[in-house]
Amino acid sequence: MYSIDLNSDLGESFGAYTIGNDKEILKHVTSANIACGFHAGDPVVMEKTVALAVQNGVALGAHPGLPDLVGFGRRKIDIKPADAYAIVLYQVGALQAFAAAQRVSVQHVKPHGALYNMAAKDPALAEAIAKAVYAVDPKLILYGLAGSQLIIQAERLGLSTASEVFADRTYQQDGSLTPRSQPNAMITDEEESISQVLRMIKEGVVRAQNGQDISVRADTVCVHGDGMKALAFADKIHHTLELQGIQIKSFC
Amino acid sequence: MYSIDLNSDLGESFGAYTIGNDKEILKHVTSANIACGFHAGDPVVMEKTVALAVQNGVALGAHPGLPDLVGFGRRKIDIKPADAYAIVLYQVGALQAFAAAQRVSVQHVKPHGALYNMAAKDPALAEAIAKAVYAVDPKLILYGLAGSQLIIQAERLGLSTASEVFADRTYQQDGSLTPRSQPNAMITDEEESISQVLRMIKEGVVRAQNGQDISVRADTVCVHGDGMKALAFADKIHHTLELQGIQIKSFC
Amino acid sequence: MYSIDLNSDLGESFGAYTIGNDKEILKHVTSANIACGFHAGDPVVMEKTVALAVQNGVALGAHPGLPDLVGFGRRKIDIKPADAYAIVLYQVGALQAFAAAQRVSVQHVKPHGALYNMAAKDPALAEAIAKAVYAVDPKLILYGLAGSQLIIQAERLGLSTASEVFADRTYQQDGSLTPRSQPNAMITDEEESISQVLRMIKEGVVRAQNGQDISVRADTVCVHGDGMKALAFADKIHHTLELQGIQIKSFC
Amino acid sequence: MYSIDLNSDLGESFGAYTIGNDKEILKHVTSANIACGFHAGDPVVMEKTVALAVQNGVALGAHPGLPDLVGFGRRKIDIKPADAYAIVLYQVGALQAFAAAQRVSVQHVKPHGALYNMAAKDPALAEAIAKAVYAVDPKLILYGLAGSQLIIQAERLGLSTASEVFADRTYQQDGSLTPRSQPNAMITDEEESISQVLRMIKEGVVRAQNGQDISVRADTVCVHGDGMKALAFADKIHHTLELQGIQIKSFC
Repeated sequence: MYSIDLNSDLGESFGAYTIGNDKEILKHVTSANIACGFHAGDPVVMEKTVALAVQNGVALGAHPGLPDLVGFGRRKIDIKPADAYAIVLYQVGALQAFAAAQRVSVQHVKPHGALYNMAAKDPALAEAIAKAVYAVDPKLILYGLAGSQLIIQAERLGLSTASEVFADRTYQQDGSLTPRSQPNAMITDEEESISQVLRMIKEGVVRAQNGQDISVRADTVCVHGDGMKALAFADKIHHTLELQGIQIKSFC
Repeated sequence: MYSIDLNSDLGESFGAYTIGNDKEILKHVTSANIACGFHAGDPVVMEKTVALAVQNGVALGAHPGLPDLVGFGRRKIDIKPADAYAIVLYQVGALQAFAAAQRVSVQHVKPHGALYNMAAKDPALAEAIAKAVYAVDPKLILYGLAGSQLIIQAERLGLSTASEVFADRTYQQDGSLTPRSQPNAMITDEEESISQVLRMIKEGVVRAQNGQDISVRADTVCVHGDGMKALAFADKIHHTLELQGIQIKSFC
Repeated sequence: MYSIDLNSDLGESFGAYTIGNDKEILKHVTSANIACGFHAGDPVVMEKTVALAVQNGVALGAHPGLPDLVGFGRRKIDIKPADAYAIVLYQVGALQAFAAAQRVSVQHVKPHGALYNMAAKDPALAEAIAKAVYAVDPKLILYGLAGSQLIIQAERLGLSTASEVFADRTYQQDGSLTPRSQPNAMITDEEESISQVLRMIKEGVVRAQNGQDISVRADTVCVHGDGMKALAFADKIHHTLELQGIQIKSFC
Repeated sequence: MYSIDLNSDLGESFGAYTIGNDKEILKHVTSANIACGFHAGDPVVMEKTVALAVQNGVALGAHPGLPDLVGFGRRKIDIKPADAYAIVLYQVGALQAFAAAQRVSVQHVKPHGALYNMAAKDPALAEAIAKAVYAVDPKLILYGLAGSQLIIQAERLGLSTASEVFADRTYQQDGSLTPRSQPNAMITDEEESISQVLRMIKEGVVRAQNGQDISVRADTVCVHGDGMKALAFADKIHHTLELQGIQIKSFC
């Protein structure tokens, strides 16, 4: 039987600022990537988000980012591997404390934004992140782009991994995502999105932009929770996958 | 046999900025209060400081502060108990990750600066901090001003505590420290400082500013590491206490 | 003929975070208090907000706050007058650059949140803020709570001032606002709000919580732009004041 | 008669953290690049540094940096030209307020660290920075690496520029600095440093790493103030240039 995890980025509010609709999206996903205060989130938001996730039976993950609140962690910063190691350790530890306070454990770590993208291609950065995760707790699962350096380096260290795929993004022949700067980067048609996900789960392939099928491993699908359309899509993909007999569950 | 812990605030450097002489002061103390990135310190500094403390056999403590880097955590901020709970949880968790990465445990938590002072007098804030420490790990020891609300609330919750005394500060009749704004707040004579500490350890009393002896519990003495004079005094108090047959050790 | 300025706090978005509906509220007010990056706002948001205000013919004001983004500048921080002087100078200067880039001038300065409230009661803080405003440009108008230390100290220095009154807040016998922590702090009835404003403008009095009329100077009314209800109220008060023959205009 | 400006980065302390020896280096230079709070500096430090520079008769410059305090503005951040425009505008305006408060004017703007290096090679970023400087005050002088995009774009806009050269760095054949990652990037011999500067001023050439002389424009030399050795060198280069009959002065 096929099985898939649905993950979403949560806890991105900050102080008086609200982003996302965490309460609603938590009804549709199985794993929560919780911002840890560097690119988004703050300690009070983290506490509330952990409580909300626990109430919904959703697995907890740390979502460490670059120290760039004004850029929401989406801008590349030329950090050294040693910096990546330390900022991941710090942020994962912070989330673990909120989990411990509620007598639950953190299931996974998924780097955010530019840190995720940089680590997908840079082996030294990917290795530093994987080492940080392993150092905090070798039972943590590292989420990364399917086929990326993050997955490769994590497996070299003996960490469990979850290969992430995207419903709304197109793929290049080498398995990377088409950059957002290109016109055909996004899939806006919902049926096409869901078909892509189903093929990735059932057949382990995705049609690349050049028309060829390439193999891809799909352990978890990223689901957005911003805006009514995103919530409706989260609902739709959840139900379609269930109808197709695919089990939707986290890894813990 | 008498026993005392010597603690010092460490890991207060930040990025390109250096404060303190951690390597030297670690030779003289038994417990390190490590800044956690809110009032001082950053993830890279935390990692190095934890490693240094471990190399010196010094017990690790989290030193959570208010989110006020430019004010070094010394300015009162009118936070709510729920904020205090969350920022303590966050910072203690962050330090625990660095400890876990080096296969050691955090021994204690000592709030920093204005957070320490506010919690000494405000029962609700003190309770929130104590609850946060308990929530992360009920075996953690909470350091607080001897006789303060921090100690009272921690003990009510069942936490172990360490009552902190100061060598270089004078005391009021109610057991509080003479505010720094007053002329006689500081003890600058080294002999007088050491005598005050010895009496606190051996007799459990301190002479208050009004000339009366008041009782005080001394589990740990705060030792500064900034500047050559501070290091010389740390060395001196360490040796004097040993000569007096007082065992100098942490609590773990 | 009576005349009044309507001011609103704007430019409070930050990075990926949006607060307020600046485009709509700018249709109803005559002066904009623009956040300067300490409690809210960022350089990109400031530039857009200045452009929007200029397009709407709304006078520009700096809205300097405490360095507390996570607390939105609403938490008291125990800063010294010299700190207040420097942070006001800094933030006003930053806004002036955006104004200069669009060939317009800054009309006024209105401290934000806790800085506004602290300076209302603390003469030394109020004087430091007034001195900073005077030092940047003695033609700037300082907005402050009617009857507050901010107004008193600004006038002592020879600055022009605008005494601010509130439509949705009740007043104490000494002219201060009823603290939000008290049950009757807010006026929720729109008719009552507008009546209070009309009396303040035309008669120079407001009915205090103890039932007595106290005198109050009303140069500018604070209007909120958050949420549909606030926008509707802004529209309503604007029209009602016009119908009553009161001229609505800024000071420049 | 030959003439040269000596500039130094100042005001880099932050809160309780001290960097540099501003008082001493101000005796040797003619222009001060003052940090503006993004990569270093804070409002209180800026005020003191402006006062110190004015007392020493040293010309004031803004030294805007990337928003990266922990990285001291030395790490590349993938910002857009519109971001660069806004952060330069903001920081220059902030410094102008401190200058205005002391009845002096800002002479120049020199981008800091990674912003300086990125803008040296990226025409769009350089143009955005030059536009920001021009927008605040077209009389400001933009300092940039001799031959860089910053100089080229500034001149296209009609800004005055100062071409900066380095005493302690070697040059590539294309006029760029040898990257610090390469072994021969730094000139450690003081005589060699001073000879290089003299040739740049008098002959307008520098010997590149490949042994060929390339032309270079030298309007200003960057002088460091960190450490005793740097101060001694500042003193030495100042005196040697004077002995060689070169006038040492700023541009205002």
